[in-house]
Amino acid sequence: MKIGIVGSGALGLYYGALLQRSGQDVHFLLRRDYLAISTGGLYVHSCNGDFHLPTLSAYRDTGEIGEVDLVLVGLKTISNQYMLDLVRPLIGDSTAILTLQNGLGNEELLAEEFGAERVLGGVAFLCSNRGEPGNVHHLGAGEIRLGEYDGGLSQRSKDLATMFNNAGVQCEAVADLRRARWEKLVWNIPFNGLAALLGKDVTEILSHPWSNDLVRELMLEVIAAANAQTIDIPIDAAQFSQQLIEFTEEMDHYRPSMMIDRAEGRALELEAIYAVPLQYARQSGVSMPRVEMLFALLDIGE
Amino acid sequence: MKIGIVGSGALGLYYGALLQRSGQDVHFLLRRDYLAISTGGLYVHSCNGDFHLPTLSAYRDTGEIGEVDLVLVGLKTISNQYMLDLVRPLIGDSTAILTLQNGLGNEELLAEEFGAERVLGGVAFLCSNRGEPGNVHHLGAGEIRLGEYDGGLSQRSKDLATMFNNAGVQCEAVADLRRARWEKLVWNIPFNGLAALLGKDVTEILSHPWSNDLVRELMLEVIAAANAQTIDIPIDAAQFSQQLIEFTEEMDHYRPSMMIDRAEGRALELEAIYAVPLQYARQSGVSMPRVEMLFALLDIGE
Repeated sequence: MKIGIVGSGALGLYYGALLQRSGQDVHFLLRRDYLAISTGGLYVHSCNGDFHLPTLSAYRDTGEIGEVDLVLVGLKTISNQYMLDLVRPLIGDSTAILTLQNGLGNEELLAEEFGAERVLGGVAFLCSNRGEPGNVHHLGAGEIRLGEYDGGLSQRSKDLATMFNNAGVQCEAVADLRRARWEKLVWNIPFNGLAALLGKDVTEILSHPWSNDLVRELMLEVIAAANAQTIDIPIDAAQFSQQLIEFTEEMDHYRPSMMIDRAEGRALELEAIYAVPLQYARQSGVSMPRVEMLFALLDIGE
Repeated sequence: MKIGIVGSGALGLYYGALLQRSGQDVHFLLRRDYLAISTGGLYVHSCNGDFHLPTLSAYRDTGEIGEVDLVLVGLKTISNQYMLDLVRPLIGDSTAILTLQNGLGNEELLAEEFGAERVLGGVAFLCSNRGEPGNVHHLGAGEIRLGEYDGGLSQRSKDLATMFNNAGVQCEAVADLRRARWEKLVWNIPFNGLAALLGKDVTEILSHPWSNDLVRELMLEVIAAANAQTIDIPIDAAQFSQQLIEFTEEMDHYRPSMMIDRAEGRALELEAIYAVPLQYARQSGVSMPRVEMLFALLDIGE
């Protein structure tokens, strides 16, 4: 399958490398890492074993890639204003687009421009960071849950899940993408925001009694908003929040992407992770006062 | 009147200096500023006009001061574990104790040890900071509202108000100290906490639309808790919050004490300004979710 990776950061490089290693025809749009990768290839430092790809199909411009079977979007949502122009040259008659970006609102942008029938979304539970140019660090996890923007369990989504599985990525096709997106937010909203605001990693946050309580309260607000959306099966608040907290306790001092972004002075993904979910919750008559407060506290620091 | 100042920081030095200038017999317990003040006196840099007191009665130990008519407590509440021992040598048969400390719980400590009939409390709306040793900066405001811990408008509290007025301090005796303390918290809880957490001054906080909204929401939570206490007249939520915001808009980039404490790595007055008010609110069946969240966010940084 010919795949174009748009947004080759920690996520795009990692999944793209695994797909290439498994025999897919992967083409990377690169910016920061273009020179390093063109000359030295890509080094993947992974808790599942390091590997090196000596040669990648690397581009500075998606126009040089041409039409592909699958566009994989890994762009930071703060760069969404460039997304449509970057994706357009890759689109042929039967091209599918899979966005693995954070938060809400990304499939909507792609569907409006390229047609809803092309668009799939996925949530990635991946702990990875970029290193020096030409290096990506995979610290843990990595599973993907993907599905059709229009809903339903399509053959296409099952085939994509199989492709990821064959590349060594745990991947499940789901009928209810909306629910999967909100489930991811139940983690992203507390941990990304608190880590960025306080400059504390997830282990530090969970080890403090009151911020541990606050994580759970934030999760319960997000779950209440999720259950007010059109989703197939409501999320079990007590069980799911407990499960996510236990999942996070396994992470050893993990620094969420938003914490790193703030520490390095980059813009935060506040629109996709806070503003759009707050808007959807409000439209469903659900208020998330603590989430709103966290958003306000993060936004004044921008 | 013989007055002993316990806790000669920005507040104790400023009011003590004005009282001495007006002819009162003021004795200062000093620590950081002892040497500078013993040799060079105290410089008051005030928006109402600078002045210099060449000689102060300065002590390192309240035992050397002996009994006084009035103990004025200006200690940071984070040092409350030393308060009773510092005050004890000053107490004679008719000594009154006036605490101008922040938050809740201070009169209770003094009353339990020295008898409720001795204890008055006051809230000071004072913008002042310590400068180099021997210097105090008065940036604005300074009015005091004081009253009996037991409640009621006593002759003693009126006399103290007159004493402050004669020293150039706007001061009012009030019958309902508890209400006055909560009114002060309506300012302290949002502005001290947000400024410390975000490292932004009050002007920066109010100029950002969402943190401006958040200030008002925090104020409304505190007012609801205040009105659930035993107070004479309920606080008008809309009118009082608006009045405090306008009062704060007059301050030009004022940095609340808690912001300075955090920037300089000192402990914050979280117990008196957050933990005790949250406990009193809870006992009255009122929840303050945003205040609780602000407290948790501040506490994890300690």
